[in-house]
Amino acid sequence: MDMERIYAARKRLQHFIHMTPLIYSALLNRELKKHIWLKLETQLPTGSFKPRPAFNSILTHLDAAREHGVIASSSGNFAQGVAYAARELGVSAMIVMTNNTSPYKIKRTKDYGAEVVLCGDTHQDRVETTKQLQAKTGRVLLHPYDSEETIAGDASIGLELSDQLGEKFNHNVTVLVPVSGGGLIAGIAFALKNLHPNCKIIGIQPENNGSLAKSFAAGQCEFSSIGKTIADGLSSSIPGEIPFSIIKDYVDDVVSVTEDEIRFATQFLVEQHKLVVEPSGAVPVAALFANKISAQNVVCIISGGNVSVKVEYK
Amino acid sequence: MDMERIYAARKRLQHFIHMTPLIYSALLNRELKKHIWLKLETQLPTGSFKPRPAFNSILTHLDAAREHGVIASSSGNFAQGVAYAARELGVSAMIVMTNNTSPYKIKRTKDYGAEVVLCGDTHQDRVETTKQLQAKTGRVLLHPYDSEETIAGDASIGLELSDQLGEKFNHNVTVLVPVSGGGLIAGIAFALKNLHPNCKIIGIQPENNGSLAKSFAAGQCEFSSIGKTIADGLSSSIPGEIPFSIIKDYVDDVVSVTEDEIRFATQFLVEQHKLVVEPSGAVPVAALFANKISAQNVVCIISGGNVSVKVEYK
Repeated sequence: MDMERIYAARKRLQHFIHMTPLIYSALLNRELKKHIWLKLETQLPTGSFKPRPAFNSILTHLDAAREHGVIASSSGNFAQGVAYAARELGVSAMIVMTNNTSPYKIKRTKDYGAEVVLCGDTHQDRVETTKQLQAKTGRVLLHPYDSEETIAGDASIGLELSDQLGEKFNHNVTVLVPVSGGGLIAGIAFALKNLHPNCKIIGIQPENNGSLAKSFAAGQCEFSSIGKTIADGLSSSIPGEIPFSIIKDYVDDVVSVTEDEIRFATQFLVEQHKLVVEPSGAVPVAALFANKISAQNVVCIISGGNVSVKVEYK
Repeated sequence: MDMERIYAARKRLQHFIHMTPLIYSALLNRELKKHIWLKLETQLPTGSFKPRPAFNSILTHLDAAREHGVIASSSGNFAQGVAYAARELGVSAMIVMTNNTSPYKIKRTKDYGAEVVLCGDTHQDRVETTKQLQAKTGRVLLHPYDSEETIAGDASIGLELSDQLGEKFNHNVTVLVPVSGGGLIAGIAFALKNLHPNCKIIGIQPENNGSLAKSFAAGQCEFSSIGKTIADGLSSSIPGEIPFSIIKDYVDDVVSVTEDEIRFATQFLVEQHKLVVEPSGAVPVAALFANKISAQNVVCIISGGNVSVKVEYK
């Protein structure tokens, strides 16, 4: 990775993605006696940060993508990000999902115009089917985290934060990032540490999926068995090789949060903070409420808001 | 009203209220082909703009309030705003509510430390009980809209908008404000029209409560019978005399929205925009989706987020 690639990504994205709001949380300040900012990636199309890597990956290979289409394997926010970006760019998108994917997510992905292929029940089924279909169709393969273009797209969040917080970065800012395969934190850490060497970057993941925590401690990518978590977007059983090569040099720590802590933070954000945030996007706030972060100036990357909420009218 | 009073209010509020975010809505831009900003009053303590008038009113009479306490009649967001501000300022607060007020709202108000007095079933019962209790206790009476201090507190939103949008106000900005008794729109209109004479201010109210629309057309305060509306914060059957004296000179138009339009906007904001907004706070967005606003550069005052939402975990 290098900064040129990240600046190029941001330039590519600027016609398609508006800078997301960074809001100071007076409410969390009162609760936790810290200065806390929320970077609302929920405000992007499809309700998560995923259009950033999707647009950057497709735009980097735009001619091939227009000729052959793109293919990706995902059951979550990346599927919708790719479907949306592809439609905006006039590119055909095929998304491979397992048979047990929720009908809601299948519908959302189809609504953005993607062709959905269902196969098997396991992550492995999905990866193999994707590989076969890619070979057969010649579509450009997009990876949710283990690719330079994906990471450079994610890194655009770091550049925006640098613009938005400006000289505050001289005052010991710590950025909390939800982690799964590691693409998001790798991009943000690389961009911010290059621009502001004194800032700290901490990954937050569910205790029930400790794959990055385990790998980080070991200094190399290691598999973890995964338990059930309401943070269903953070379900990778091993970090990606490319993101991990960045993470081990640029990330300061990885912190785990329990299911109860994730649920409390999600409820707090929705009920008190009036922000719709999915459990996977609420893990930074969960770590703060659990007193697992000692820093005083904290940015939480609120990575997505795709959770079902029901309004109860009187 | 005069600008000095409004600047004084803002100065009083600055230790207690953080400037609320103004976010550009790329999502509404794609849907409606307009430039739309959302002023998120949902981000204030208690989830609505009401701490502004509550703090300003109490601070203006702080010595008397500390000695005798304050009293207010409200079953909605003003009750919570007063309870919160009073607690922060070390002032005793008594809130008069009717017996049929929802237990949820009674609890919220009590949780902020206020004494709640229940009485009768009608608005009139509430007003009379408040009057009697005020005379008996000597508490300082706080009015939700028909007072200069309330309006000056509300007007601080206009000053913030002026700072946040800056020179964009030279380009035909229209501000959409939810209306009930008229305090909020009177304050915002007075402040903004004095600073930016070319901007337009439009009040939005439910079709089922057309009291301000009727009064505005008649040029004088007139009673309306009120139908049932999900926008339960917009239920005043007649505008306040003081706000109306400002509204008739400073507001450009009043637009009504149907129950279906309010419901659609509320659902859109929660499900697509990932923002928890109560129906009363969603009426500006309802007017936009209903094609009732011709302006191209629009600010929506999102006045509150106190609606019950249930997160559905998988």
